[in-house]
Amino acid sequence: MSQTFRWPVRVYWEDTDAGGIVFYANYLKFFERARTEWLRSLGLEQQRLREQTGGLFVVTETALRYHRPARLDDLLQVSARVTELGRASMTLQQKARLLPPQASQADLGDAAAASEPAVAELLCDASIRIGWVDAATLRPLRLPPALVHLLNQS
Amino acid sequence: MSQTFRWPVRVYWEDTDAGGIVFYANYLKFFERARTEWLRSLGLEQQRLREQTGGLFVVTETALRYHRPARLDDLLQVSARVTELGRASMTLQQKARLLPPQASQADLGDAAAASEPAVAELLCDASIRIGWVDAATLRPLRLPPALVHLLNQS
Amino acid sequence: MSQTFRWPVRVYWEDTDAGGIVFYANYLKFFERARTEWLRSLGLEQQRLREQTGGLFVVTETALRYHRPARLDDLLQVSARVTELGRASMTLQQKARLLPPQASQADLGDAAAASEPAVAELLCDASIRIGWVDAATLRPLRLPPALVHLLNQS
Amino acid sequence: MSQTFRWPVRVYWEDTDAGGIVFYANYLKFFERARTEWLRSLGLEQQRLREQTGGLFVVTETALRYHRPARLDDLLQVSARVTELGRASMTLQQKARLLPPQASQADLGDAAAASEPAVAELLCDASIRIGWVDAATLRPLRLPPALVHLLNQS
Repeated sequence: MSQTFRWPVRVYWEDTDAGGIVFYANYLKFFERARTEWLRSLGLEQQRLREQTGGLFVVTETALRYHRPARLDDLLQVSARVTELGRASMTLQQKARLLPPQASQADLGDAAAASEPAVAELLCDASIRIGWVDAATLRPLRLPPALVHLLNQS
Repeated sequence: MSQTFRWPVRVYWEDTDAGGIVFYANYLKFFERARTEWLRSLGLEQQRLREQTGGLFVVTETALRYHRPARLDDLLQVSARVTELGRASMTLQQKARLLPPQASQADLGDAAAASEPAVAELLCDASIRIGWVDAATLRPLRLPPALVHLLNQS
Repeated sequence: MSQTFRWPVRVYWEDTDAGGIVFYANYLKFFERARTEWLRSLGLEQQRLREQTGGLFVVTETALRYHRPARLDDLLQVSARVTELGRASMTLQQKARLLPPQASQADLGDAAAASEPAVAELLCDASIRIGWVDAATLRPLRLPPALVHLLNQS
Repeated sequence: MSQTFRWPVRVYWEDTDAGGIVFYANYLKFFERARTEWLRSLGLEQQRLREQTGGLFVVTETALRYHRPARLDDLLQVSARVTELGRASMTLQQKARLLPPQASQADLGDAAAASEPAVAELLCDASIRIGWVDAATLRPLRLPPALVHLLNQS
């Protein structure tokens, strides 16, 4: 539960707003991409998980602080780390950092394993709480033991 | 099939990009809002339609031309008019126009019935083709006769 | 600073995700639409404000709790109320409620003044902190006195 | 002008709608990511281009046909190929294909150079016309000769 997963995110036109910066709501998308890839790195694809278990992850709480803006063409490193794993939910700490311009996409090939760049500026950090629910009723369910086992090893 | 439906759309931060203007992909959202409200004006709610018929509208072709940009706080008038109604699909012509600043939200209260403002600038026009499909398999279906009847009267 | 502003928001396809419900990041859009319309109700258009003062509102912190999901075609009532007004920032409490099906768009014509519907279910509530910054440098600025005056009267 | 650029795009929750499939407007985002990375592969970053030339690419026409839907977790290969290069605009043909499940992210490391997978299903194809405009006035400009030279070599 203490390892940090990292995923690169490039800023495109779709992510920006008329302030010339990344629209703040879009960090929730960036954080979710990193969570999804973290789950995938554990062998968990959410679509298949739903078909196999009838369950679904849903976000129940988000708390974000915005420190500095990102701009078009910026390359971000988005991290995810589980800070709490309960019976029917988990909480993750997530951060978005600005990578320096010289960090090429190539350097990010092994992004999941990449260490935290010394010079990366913190743009946004978040606490995200996620519940496990029945996909049909959206009622809370206990996390399946096999899932808890996998998450505990991450 | 020849009446034009109109719906007001306000431009918010979420709609803009770092060019300072409405992100072009978002006109597809504006056009869909107008189509949804046009269907609602005919008594058709898509969620209920799906539950009752097992069918779903899906967009199969879009063609848009962008004439002038819209900006934050602009008030648009978005129109929808059926130009072709087939057995399993229909085509709509849609336009987004910029309303002059003095057109208040109040003036738009009766937006659906509003006539085309003489001074409204054309921002974007589109041809949108929509198919009727099985909600589970997404395979094309014939439009239910009751639906065709309603659409023919619009 | 104690009045509550309310604004109707309809759920469209663009707002939903494959879980069949409103994608959680989109509540930030709904809350912003309500804040923008609240400012407009005070005579403040953000584009003009920027041209006149060189300043810009930016979101610096968000904290959201998701209670129940909204679905396609649902009609929400989104509220905004200033809970703290500082020198360079303000904090708002915002809520999204589900309006009962019989609440027609017509009933919402006077939405800003509408009282809180007794039967509306709470879907999501939020605390949103907003800073006032220089539009060019994005550095924090003191809120212009005229703006503070207006906000204090809201 | 005849080479095809390819870029991988993963489908996340943010991309889907309540139909359980990718929301059709989002293919415009996928296509733009591929165009942006194609330009980057030519050494062109749009933010820097704007600062250096005062010019900006804007989309002036889009025509999309949707053949099959994509779903959560799908991995797409999005292509871009210039089909016409004029004085103040260019037209690209773009396609989104579904990669078979066994195509891992690793296989996509050299995605730009990847040949077209024999078994990839066509999901959506598009013709996108792009103009070069003055970033301040948004009026059409002639493409800078150095830019035309680069694009001709792509």
